[in-house]
Amino acid sequence: MKAVVYRSARHLEVQRRAPEPPGPGQLRIAVAYTGICGTDLHVYHGDMDARVGPPAVIGHEMSGRVAEVGAGVTGYAVGQPVTVMPTRFCGRCAACRRGDAHVCHAMDFLGVDSPGAMQSSWTVPADLVVPLPDDLPLDRAALVEPVAVAVHDVRRGRVTDADQVVVVGGGPVGVLVATVARHRGARVLLVEPDPFRRSVAAGVGIDAVDPAGTDVVALVDGRTDGAGADVAFEVSGSAAGVGTAVDVLTTRGRLVMVAIHPQPRPVNLHRIFWRELELLGARLYQREDMVEAVRLVASGVVPAGQLISRVVPVEAAASAFTALEEGGGVLKVLLDWQEADR
Amino acid sequence: MKAVVYRSARHLEVQRRAPEPPGPGQLRIAVAYTGICGTDLHVYHGDMDARVGPPAVIGHEMSGRVAEVGAGVTGYAVGQPVTVMPTRFCGRCAACRRGDAHVCHAMDFLGVDSPGAMQSSWTVPADLVVPLPDDLPLDRAALVEPVAVAVHDVRRGRVTDADQVVVVGGGPVGVLVATVARHRGARVLLVEPDPFRRSVAAGVGIDAVDPAGTDVVALVDGRTDGAGADVAFEVSGSAAGVGTAVDVLTTRGRLVMVAIHPQPRPVNLHRIFWRELELLGARLYQREDMVEAVRLVASGVVPAGQLISRVVPVEAAASAFTALEEGGGVLKVLLDWQEADR
Repeated sequence: MKAVVYRSARHLEVQRRAPEPPGPGQLRIAVAYTGICGTDLHVYHGDMDARVGPPAVIGHEMSGRVAEVGAGVTGYAVGQPVTVMPTRFCGRCAACRRGDAHVCHAMDFLGVDSPGAMQSSWTVPADLVVPLPDDLPLDRAALVEPVAVAVHDVRRGRVTDADQVVVVGGGPVGVLVATVARHRGARVLLVEPDPFRRSVAAGVGIDAVDPAGTDVVALVDGRTDGAGADVAFEVSGSAAGVGTAVDVLTTRGRLVMVAIHPQPRPVNLHRIFWRELELLGARLYQREDMVEAVRLVASGVVPAGQLISRVVPVEAAASAFTALEEGGGVLKVLLDWQEADR
Repeated sequence: MKAVVYRSARHLEVQRRAPEPPGPGQLRIAVAYTGICGTDLHVYHGDMDARVGPPAVIGHEMSGRVAEVGAGVTGYAVGQPVTVMPTRFCGRCAACRRGDAHVCHAMDFLGVDSPGAMQSSWTVPADLVVPLPDDLPLDRAALVEPVAVAVHDVRRGRVTDADQVVVVGGGPVGVLVATVARHRGARVLLVEPDPFRRSVAAGVGIDAVDPAGTDVVALVDGRTDGAGADVAFEVSGSAAGVGTAVDVLTTRGRLVMVAIHPQPRPVNLHRIFWRELELLGARLYQREDMVEAVRLVASGVVPAGQLISRVVPVEAAASAFTALEEGGGVLKVLLDWQEADR
């Protein structure tokens, strides 16, 4: 088998390794595709070395087929298409005790805290495995994990078919949030400065505007009889994005904080007070979000195929990371593991 | 009759005026007591001249008795004790159309946007009047309006008897929030640097600590088996207070933003994301909050008498504002209007 190993900042290496046989309660998966996520880029930049502990196999967006079934595992057969929910909770911390295990304080996030999906053979606990429909193409299925993020975010924002939604930031998660919110019946506006990302969004029918050339608040007020948006999603990670997301909201509007802001940001708390806004942190997903994500990808509600910009062989992993880093002209990039062991 | 007239920054004047007879749908109230609120201090400092339009009669915390009943008003008799909910909504703006009239965008806030309570005879629309029980002393009844703020804040924070609550800021509203949250069954910790305010809080049985000498996060973690607080109220208006309120919260904890922060504040959005926190703006109150506030003051659940630091005659209004400005040794100060017209 092969694995993409993160060795140090901006240094990936493709290694040959022996597959790890599944222990009791485990499944070995023949990986078909892995997506490259923003978190993978953070790891690649060396920002998460303390958690990752290089050298390490990273990656957590994937699809594949069961290759080997460990002792005691029932309900899975060799060849069955699957994906993995890459979050293991401890069951003992304060979050788990409250019933919020999906944001467990001692989370083992596969691909960060323990070996990830960027290997042609991945051995994982069977209870993290999520079955896929037989007729779902495996490249599209590699997007199930980020779709689960979007499903969770939209659920957290309590989006309904009466809502005007504004999504600030049109990377993969932003476009997926827009797509899922639209599926819930909301009117959706996406705000994204990059023309390529806007064109991808437009290609899947999402109304996307450039914040540099648009008074977003005036536009939304115009579309809502002066009221403002019911829900905003901050997916840009920028200080300006936070400002836009606060400013577009109507009275008692909801702002879902999806992006990672490593530094404190200036926030207009007066407006939050004055309009009785709600700011809601949203992180990861729960199993029901993964199951719903499978359904949305399989049914074509999420046009996964149109969001995949490139599929590259494993050997091109380093250049794929570089392309994503540079940002222009790519949305989702997949590594194809199907020929890796030949 | 007499009135306290705000003329310009730090310039109040006691004037003699003719009482305004009630028009149709109005009541004229013989004012008994008025409280001085943080908003009144903002006006006094000249910060709200654009809304107030001096010269103007300010004030909105009050109690009194019906002195004259306008045409078409039923259900009120001369001599009946009452207070006033000083908020008139427009019924047409986006907030009103959403059912959030209490934060109406075109709000007429009596005592700011139109003549207020600091006059011995106040004529107001009857639908803003709230009846008081006959046996409730009128000095205590002057605290009903700030108690309604606290009732609204605690309701917004969805406080239950399972919750650890932290109130950051021990001015009148902070102490009232702490009192109402405790009445809901929560364990409450108040954080306040001023020793006099802490002593008032302690006097009504509220556990109050000095943030200068206390690691508040460690204290709360210690009291919650490492989990953190379920609800925090930011009532201090300070940047440090915002930091404390974010840092003390457990996973999915609620932060109720009560204070006015005129400037944007740096906020740890990463923690809001990571722990899936909720930040909830809370402003003013709804009629049900006023009614509940009357009940809490009348029943003694809110120990209003112990929160009144001074009652001064109308002629001493200017010095009362100065004392509050200086902050030391006073919590709630009332003006007594009962002898004003003699």
